[in-house]
Amino acid sequence: MNKIKTGIINVSGYTGVELARLLLSHPAVELVSVTGRSAAGQKLEDVFPHLNSELVIKAELGGVELAFAALPHKQSAAEVIPLLEKGVRVVDISADFRLKEAAAYPQWYGFNHPAHQLLKEAVYGLPELHREDIVSARLVANPGCYPTGAILALAPAVKQGLIGNHIIIDSKSGVSGAGRTLNIKTHYAEANEDAAAYALEGHRHLPEIVQELGLLSTADEPAVTFVPHLVPMTRGILTTCYAPLASNVITQAEIVQLYRDFYKDAPFVRIMDCPPHTKHTSGSNMCLVHPSIDSRTGRLVVISCIDNLVKGAAGQAVQNMNLMLGLPETTGLEAMAVYP
Amino acid sequence: MNKIKTGIINVSGYTGVELARLLLSHPAVELVSVTGRSAAGQKLEDVFPHLNSELVIKAELGGVELAFAALPHKQSAAEVIPLLEKGVRVVDISADFRLKEAAAYPQWYGFNHPAHQLLKEAVYGLPELHREDIVSARLVANPGCYPTGAILALAPAVKQGLIGNHIIIDSKSGVSGAGRTLNIKTHYAEANEDAAAYALEGHRHLPEIVQELGLLSTADEPAVTFVPHLVPMTRGILTTCYAPLASNVITQAEIVQLYRDFYKDAPFVRIMDCPPHTKHTSGSNMCLVHPSIDSRTGRLVVISCIDNLVKGAAGQAVQNMNLMLGLPETTGLEAMAVYP
Amino acid sequence: MNKIKTGIINVSGYTGVELARLLLSHPAVELVSVTGRSAAGQKLEDVFPHLNSELVIKAELGGVELAFAALPHKQSAAEVIPLLEKGVRVVDISADFRLKEAAAYPQWYGFNHPAHQLLKEAVYGLPELHREDIVSARLVANPGCYPTGAILALAPAVKQGLIGNHIIIDSKSGVSGAGRTLNIKTHYAEANEDAAAYALEGHRHLPEIVQELGLLSTADEPAVTFVPHLVPMTRGILTTCYAPLASNVITQAEIVQLYRDFYKDAPFVRIMDCPPHTKHTSGSNMCLVHPSIDSRTGRLVVISCIDNLVKGAAGQAVQNMNLMLGLPETTGLEAMAVYP
Amino acid sequence: MNKIKTGIINVSGYTGVELARLLLSHPAVELVSVTGRSAAGQKLEDVFPHLNSELVIKAELGGVELAFAALPHKQSAAEVIPLLEKGVRVVDISADFRLKEAAAYPQWYGFNHPAHQLLKEAVYGLPELHREDIVSARLVANPGCYPTGAILALAPAVKQGLIGNHIIIDSKSGVSGAGRTLNIKTHYAEANEDAAAYALEGHRHLPEIVQELGLLSTADEPAVTFVPHLVPMTRGILTTCYAPLASNVITQAEIVQLYRDFYKDAPFVRIMDCPPHTKHTSGSNMCLVHPSIDSRTGRLVVISCIDNLVKGAAGQAVQNMNLMLGLPETTGLEAMAVYP
Repeated sequence: MNKIKTGIINVSGYTGVELARLLLSHPAVELVSVTGRSAAGQKLEDVFPHLNSELVIKAELGGVELAFAALPHKQSAAEVIPLLEKGVRVVDISADFRLKEAAAYPQWYGFNHPAHQLLKEAVYGLPELHREDIVSARLVANPGCYPTGAILALAPAVKQGLIGNHIIIDSKSGVSGAGRTLNIKTHYAEANEDAAAYALEGHRHLPEIVQELGLLSTADEPAVTFVPHLVPMTRGILTTCYAPLASNVITQAEIVQLYRDFYKDAPFVRIMDCPPHTKHTSGSNMCLVHPSIDSRTGRLVVISCIDNLVKGAAGQAVQNMNLMLGLPETTGLEAMAVYP
Repeated sequence: MNKIKTGIINVSGYTGVELARLLLSHPAVELVSVTGRSAAGQKLEDVFPHLNSELVIKAELGGVELAFAALPHKQSAAEVIPLLEKGVRVVDISADFRLKEAAAYPQWYGFNHPAHQLLKEAVYGLPELHREDIVSARLVANPGCYPTGAILALAPAVKQGLIGNHIIIDSKSGVSGAGRTLNIKTHYAEANEDAAAYALEGHRHLPEIVQELGLLSTADEPAVTFVPHLVPMTRGILTTCYAPLASNVITQAEIVQLYRDFYKDAPFVRIMDCPPHTKHTSGSNMCLVHPSIDSRTGRLVVISCIDNLVKGAAGQAVQNMNLMLGLPETTGLEAMAVYP
Repeated sequence: MNKIKTGIINVSGYTGVELARLLLSHPAVELVSVTGRSAAGQKLEDVFPHLNSELVIKAELGGVELAFAALPHKQSAAEVIPLLEKGVRVVDISADFRLKEAAAYPQWYGFNHPAHQLLKEAVYGLPELHREDIVSARLVANPGCYPTGAILALAPAVKQGLIGNHIIIDSKSGVSGAGRTLNIKTHYAEANEDAAAYALEGHRHLPEIVQELGLLSTADEPAVTFVPHLVPMTRGILTTCYAPLASNVITQAEIVQLYRDFYKDAPFVRIMDCPPHTKHTSGSNMCLVHPSIDSRTGRLVVISCIDNLVKGAAGQAVQNMNLMLGLPETTGLEAMAVYP
Repeated sequence: MNKIKTGIINVSGYTGVELARLLLSHPAVELVSVTGRSAAGQKLEDVFPHLNSELVIKAELGGVELAFAALPHKQSAAEVIPLLEKGVRVVDISADFRLKEAAAYPQWYGFNHPAHQLLKEAVYGLPELHREDIVSARLVANPGCYPTGAILALAPAVKQGLIGNHIIIDSKSGVSGAGRTLNIKTHYAEANEDAAAYALEGHRHLPEIVQELGLLSTADEPAVTFVPHLVPMTRGILTTCYAPLASNVITQAEIVQLYRDFYKDAPFVRIMDCPPHTKHTSGSNMCLVHPSIDSRTGRLVVISCIDNLVKGAAGQAVQNMNLMLGLPETTGLEAMAVYP
């Protein structure tokens, strides 16, 4: 069988290098081209000794049928647009094609979007919600790590109208989510033995969450408060969501069943009977979800766990690629989490 | 000056040993007696090499004017009651005298309280709320670690009627909060690189929080959802509180000022202009608080940080002792946090 | 193709559960039976949510052609001997068949070995040294985690006579090496933010190291000082070995080449040009080795890194199984390390 | 009593800020001036929220009787020399005045030393070895963190001729030892869950160690192999030293007694009967030392633990200051370690 030729733009960040790990082991595709400014000219295995690959990092991508763009926002659009024009299908891991409203880009990302038409065309790459559109997409916008955990936790409840539009999302992320670029906040001695919230003024992942929950909701646009936190671990996002139940007639068993039904065709979502641990997702593409009812107050509390670099980034990107290529959704993503 | 003779019941747990550290350095009191089952007969510095003390751990407390009880609930009441009868003043660090309603003990702690009268007499030892009552108390019930962080975060807003009774409290605790007793959940390889929620069915610290916020509130009893989480660090609790603002007319600057005014006489509470880090409280008795307004949704978000073993346990107990003895509140508690 | 039926005795320790992860993904064998006292009657995926398997944990092993024993020493021999008598091939992960000298068992492990003949028959399962004997073995004694890292670091130098018999081995291990049994030393708040040496009186892995280096050496029995340390991470062993060079005529380039030649047929050993990181082996079966010369003092310094649960335990056991079954040595072990 | 006026050059690195913590709590001195490029113009408590001080960080030091220089090498000499000329006494925490041989500076630090005369005059500030010279010194060269742990571990044995000149020093350091300057090696996701050796070609602390052990030795210059390692914790250095015993006639009890005698007047060195933990020194100025004999091989193994930022840097600097000012050596350094 001819393997599909794939490439990674910006392999030297954490998402890029995680993509390399997944694609190098993928049975149906071949990783033929990787780019990265700082490390150009070096072999992958010399820069990243955990990888078993002599592929040389180049300045420009070449010879690929499908590309992953793992660049910061704004830079990504600039590289993705010419690729699409050349007929290369793209999974973009930046935020550049996630939001449907062009006006959101100057507001949240500080630049005017260069291709409004592509915003309409791009498919938001959360397979659990948009599987069919992804299959035929030319351009998939891979979700942010926080939105992946939050939307998967809330989608069944919002869709079923179990909760209204008052939603609190409190996320705890491992430090790798902040990327490989040096910063005092992710300096070891600062981040170790520390927990802190950030971006109280409004994190850039908020509009994605609101957009996708809004599409599911029959009620008003969700009024979401989203507070991300850094906790001292490398991988993992734990998201705790709170919302008043629209009515009190649902039982704990019913809500678990409702969640199981909603995700019955989703191979990477598992509904748990007790609170999940991020550790049980580390290195895997699984999302563990536990819905529960606080009967004292009539609130729904839903917790989800993902590995931010896998289901929250590179793994989901491969899942999207699988769908785009007509492969089984789980191809190359079967690895169970590395525990303990 | 004659130093006051103090003692610690159950010095061998984390709260007990932290009390020993603080009392051994305290300029106005002397630590003369410590008990602990497993370690009885050994010197403090042999069991705990960080302590510089040859005091021998005994089976029974003796010769003290003021005692700290650092026992699990139920056991504590059994030891505290005879001490009070002998005229010893007590700071009890268990939950046994925190709740005013005797009926709460069978419900939350699974035992019938043996001394209803003492529940009425005991003072809830949060000096920022009950300073005057503590001064003359015979029995102080030292607050739980989670309630300390949550109540200090919310008290000004509740007291001023800025928020109604719909309150979400999401806490992230270091693992030492689970104590020194062995448990698979606090086994290193399980807790490291992991985040998880627990006690979704209702944590025992919830009734304390509701009781104290209820005393401050002029409205209905608060409807509090409290979800504690373990995150992989030794010390620290970060608490993030969410509540709808009763009205939208308050500004960020006003709310900061309101919090500063509320705590103007509280030497251990500092109101921050940006989100605080647990690291900046480690080893100290400080509570850092940051109130903020989510103007998109009209909600108040307040974050607090404490060291769970100091302001959340042993340090607050010493602060209570200082008040009971007529000493300056900060005596022996001036140490700044150990950073990084 | 018929898959070989395999089983795990004591699946509920860290080595057992890591074996389950590897065997459940292995393309040529099937995991059909697992035992474990505490968890008997439960499904694997309920006890260990990272595993995707409904296999029920039983009290007794059944229906297997090849078994892995992941029990503590002494208990293992008691279960392995009957299995061998029934014709089941065994990879024993305990120490019970590693030492050739029966007299070493009362001295180091405190029991008289029940089957001296099996000590002679058992093959020490370090494939890089004993590949051919493993292929036909009925009983393979899987090496200890520390010996794996130490022997692979020193074997080429000892075999070539580059160093004499004065050897220092200083190992730094992640905490999972101490197992899943609760202990104050592996309680999170004790082990986190701490480093300490232990077993200075003589660690049980020392006789294995001496035995295997002795077999390679043409000189006197090695005089090895081995000091293990615990450092605060979950997985990984870094071993630093020191020995005076027998002569000073070898260069850095020559020693690297000599190591590369020695391991040219070893798919899981990679000789590095710079000091390796344990992180680059996490979750993989790789051993990274860096030999270097301290020209100031005429000493050889060799550093090795492994994941203690993979190459140091479960992965090496699967590597041994592959050889015993005539499969390519790397089958089911191709996964690259999970970084960062 | 008039407090002595002190200042810190470069308060914004980890050593500088730890000095600030210690000096702000010191009963006999006052911190009146601090400098720091990046943070100039800000209050200490705004840059470092754990500090309770409104002192403003300035571009230049002023009005001090004794200064601490916490700058990188070469830069330090440039600032220290003019201060000495103005009559300010200095504790220099860089390496610029530690080595007696001027020729060592171009070799190890890459610059020609500007003040050879000061190299002769400066006192190596390890009070346990040079207490009397420190008392009258104008310029004290505060030892490196690794040399402090290594020299204290080996000094009694070298001085007594128990060991010859073949010495291996294997050190494991927390990540704060690498400073506050950003670097990929100290980026959280790289350093967490990782252990690695570095500087195999020769660490800059080696000549200090050789110099000081050489001064104690009656034999040849010590042939020291020193390999530093980073392990994933914020604070602490564990050093394991190995050396052949000159004769086998000494017992374990004798060597412990010999060490106790050597350090009988050293308030910050404690000889332990079992292997020490870095955790038991965290935040304190203690050095815990455990000498032991490997009777199988006739080697001495000595382990020491310090907090790299306290006894390994800022605490030792304050200890030196106390001696220079005629204060009790322990003034302001009595804090016990923060455990757990």
